[in-house]
Amino acid sequence: MQKLQNHMIIIFGGTGDLTKRKLMPALYKLYTREILTEKMPILCIARSRLSKQEYLEHLQPEEFISDYDEKAFTSFSRQIHYHSLDLDKDSGNELKKTVDDLNKSYTCGCNKMFYFATPPDLFDEITEVLEKNGIVKEKGWNKVVYEKPFGRDLLSAQKLQRCISSVFDEKDIYRIDHYLGKELIQNIIVFRFANAIFKEIWNRKFIDHVQITVSEKVGVEKRAGYYEKSGSIRDMVQNHLMQILSLVAMEEPKDLQPDSIRDEKVRVLKSLRPISEDDYAIGQYGPGKLDNNEVPGYREEENTDPGSMTPTFTALRVRIENDTWKGVPFFIRTGKRLAKKYSVVNLCLKGTSTPLFGKVKDNLINIRIQPDEGISIRFNGKFPGKEIRPHPVEMDFCHKCLFEYNTPEAYENLLEMIMLGDQSLFPRWDEVEASWRFIGPLLKMVEKNKQEFPNYAPGSMGPKESDELLKKTGHSWIQ
Amino acid sequence: MQKLQNHMIIIFGGTGDLTKRKLMPALYKLYTREILTEKMPILCIARSRLSKQEYLEHLQPEEFISDYDEKAFTSFSRQIHYHSLDLDKDSGNELKKTVDDLNKSYTCGCNKMFYFATPPDLFDEITEVLEKNGIVKEKGWNKVVYEKPFGRDLLSAQKLQRCISSVFDEKDIYRIDHYLGKELIQNIIVFRFANAIFKEIWNRKFIDHVQITVSEKVGVEKRAGYYEKSGSIRDMVQNHLMQILSLVAMEEPKDLQPDSIRDEKVRVLKSLRPISEDDYAIGQYGPGKLDNNEVPGYREEENTDPGSMTPTFTALRVRIENDTWKGVPFFIRTGKRLAKKYSVVNLCLKGTSTPLFGKVKDNLINIRIQPDEGISIRFNGKFPGKEIRPHPVEMDFCHKCLFEYNTPEAYENLLEMIMLGDQSLFPRWDEVEASWRFIGPLLKMVEKNKQEFPNYAPGSMGPKESDELLKKTGHSWIQ
Repeated sequence: MQKLQNHMIIIFGGTGDLTKRKLMPALYKLYTREILTEKMPILCIARSRLSKQEYLEHLQPEEFISDYDEKAFTSFSRQIHYHSLDLDKDSGNELKKTVDDLNKSYTCGCNKMFYFATPPDLFDEITEVLEKNGIVKEKGWNKVVYEKPFGRDLLSAQKLQRCISSVFDEKDIYRIDHYLGKELIQNIIVFRFANAIFKEIWNRKFIDHVQITVSEKVGVEKRAGYYEKSGSIRDMVQNHLMQILSLVAMEEPKDLQPDSIRDEKVRVLKSLRPISEDDYAIGQYGPGKLDNNEVPGYREEENTDPGSMTPTFTALRVRIENDTWKGVPFFIRTGKRLAKKYSVVNLCLKGTSTPLFGKVKDNLINIRIQPDEGISIRFNGKFPGKEIRPHPVEMDFCHKCLFEYNTPEAYENLLEMIMLGDQSLFPRWDEVEASWRFIGPLLKMVEKNKQEFPNYAPGSMGPKESDELLKKTGHSWIQ
Repeated sequence: MQKLQNHMIIIFGGTGDLTKRKLMPALYKLYTREILTEKMPILCIARSRLSKQEYLEHLQPEEFISDYDEKAFTSFSRQIHYHSLDLDKDSGNELKKTVDDLNKSYTCGCNKMFYFATPPDLFDEITEVLEKNGIVKEKGWNKVVYEKPFGRDLLSAQKLQRCISSVFDEKDIYRIDHYLGKELIQNIIVFRFANAIFKEIWNRKFIDHVQITVSEKVGVEKRAGYYEKSGSIRDMVQNHLMQILSLVAMEEPKDLQPDSIRDEKVRVLKSLRPISEDDYAIGQYGPGKLDNNEVPGYREEENTDPGSMTPTFTALRVRIENDTWKGVPFFIRTGKRLAKKYSVVNLCLKGTSTPLFGKVKDNLINIRIQPDEGISIRFNGKFPGKEIRPHPVEMDFCHKCLFEYNTPEAYENLLEMIMLGDQSLFPRWDEVEASWRFIGPLLKMVEKNKQEFPNYAPGSMGPKESDELLKKTGHSWIQ
């Protein structure tokens, strides 16, 4: 990890939702924590022609910052700057000048963090502008941060990577997967490897199967333009779910160096058995009722195709072909307009039948990523009374109860890591590539085998095909 | 297990504290649960000459029954009978007549449960009266229940056993150890053997050492007459603590039959390494402050010897010489006038040092027998923030929260078991004998190696010798 050095933060997509909702609140928090010092200007860039005052108003800090304090924000906002850039007009020269001026007045040693909070089709274009105008090639360091999606398949990801890597070093590239910024995701590493009791059982000898659910209640909202081309496989599975899966399944890294962790994660992704026709279920939500409100089906949402075949739900059976996990299916699922918003990892232990008690409920380790962050174990206790009768009960650790006020938001965590130069929580290129290599054939199968859409109702937990996927091996979704 | 049959319950010691505080409330509860039917008279026997009405008043049911209901108790009290017996006058004949009359009027088929809620020095005397007057030898079954202590050393226990076993069959003898009636004690069997995750780690490969604490806050109270001759080793260690230890350490029984469980428990007791001078610490409380009240030292209590050498605190290091536990010390302790009233089993797992995190806090399995019945695991979770830093946290199962209204008191459990003929929760003779065989040499050592008493203050957790006992092997008491 580098020591924190003064640097400029340059955000492309300065007027976008991400900047308003996530980046600015996180930077403000880092400012109040005195991680982000007054020597670190924030340069926000977008197409609109706005004065600084107009831009600050546009940010709506009082709405998006959870513990907004007017005085603190006013002080913080002094180091926020806005620059209007029209890529069509190739105004890279002006940008170069703005950057140089800021660098001079803040004496931040030409160190720069470029944050790409833009649609992905601008990634290479902006990268080229930076390169051509000598904004990157200078003394000081240059970090670059990309939001998802990183490509839309193996080929496009490789193309993007070639473009980026001609300008930036891998050690300076941060691909955001905001799930990795969540406390309970990071806790997986500690839970697994700092506890003798759990380390022992984390393998096929004890674990029957694993379930990973990332369930959303919202529909596509205003993102159909992006989502129609993406769908749940690209939007969620290829990145978030594959990352969670690799953290749950990886072997113990040799140390806590970012590359040691990423070495182990990529080993999992490279050990996946290629997906077959048997291994997936997809769905798209229809119209219906959710919490007593009528909600439109996906095809009726703003800017979607009335005959759209974009999946809004995906369930997969993933098999890891190594000694630790051979024979242990990992069932993963994600979808929109489901019954509730939650993300969870469930490890279901073997042992339904015991010599002494016969059939009992399986032990379950339940890691709640959100909400109600925590970890619980379902085990069999004695039901009160004279008989020795097992009864499933739970033992719970509530992360929130203990750490509520100390737990940073994902983006605050991630931005601090980037500022410190710690790549642990950012997928490396070979991980992204391995993940696309696994997901690519699935995308083709889904395209080829057209299904009847819509096939699930809002407020359900996805299409019946998802339940049937598990039924094949005698399993069922836990929650 | 036998089917519940009508029978008479005959309590010796009918005016004693145990009958008032524990037996009658438990029988009343069984009556309201319709386990104890109207065909089951309760005959209470004591020396005092009391009318039935006087006896019922003496019981103070409204004080000792937690959910006392006058109407229900009046109805219940119809089947309570009182008989005055003066052993010196050998009035066994009259007792015989009372029993016969009740048997006739209740048509309970001569089935009888004899409950010895008397001082132990009357056990054999009363047993002889029963035998001589033909109260036992009759058709129908005869069960007999003995309160502790069962002997005061190996020889006296064997003598008592000879007397009893000449009158009763071992299958009809119930030696009360009320700790075994506690839900969380019985839960140990389920917790250990109905859960793949815990079964796996319950051995010397994973467990560094075990701690069992039964801590009392009260002093000797009005029991000095008994306690002066007994002390904490006989009063608590030989029975309760050895029973808890054997349940924690036993191998999985082949089934849930009472004798299968007791076979495994006695195997543990027979595998104990004989105790050495190095293995114990004893203490006696002095005068001092407890909860801001001045309390007398043991030697100043009513009816104690001003130079009494009776220990009120005992700590032991117990070693079990079998494959499962070789090298795993079991530290047990019990005492009066300690900081708080609680009983707990702590299993401390190995693994202070992990490859990834270096030294971390050991995993701990904590079984709370009383109060706040429950089980928790201390494990290492991630402390919030950017670093991957382990921090000890707890995962808890609260038995009371879940089962509060369903959890019977120990005596209610035990009486129901006796009525049903289930001996699971009652130590068998060979267990009692093995326990005395282990404890005997300790009693001799304590007698020989006189110590400076008093050596601990009220409100502490015992004498410094107790801490030093653990320090020898680099351990310390957890709570």
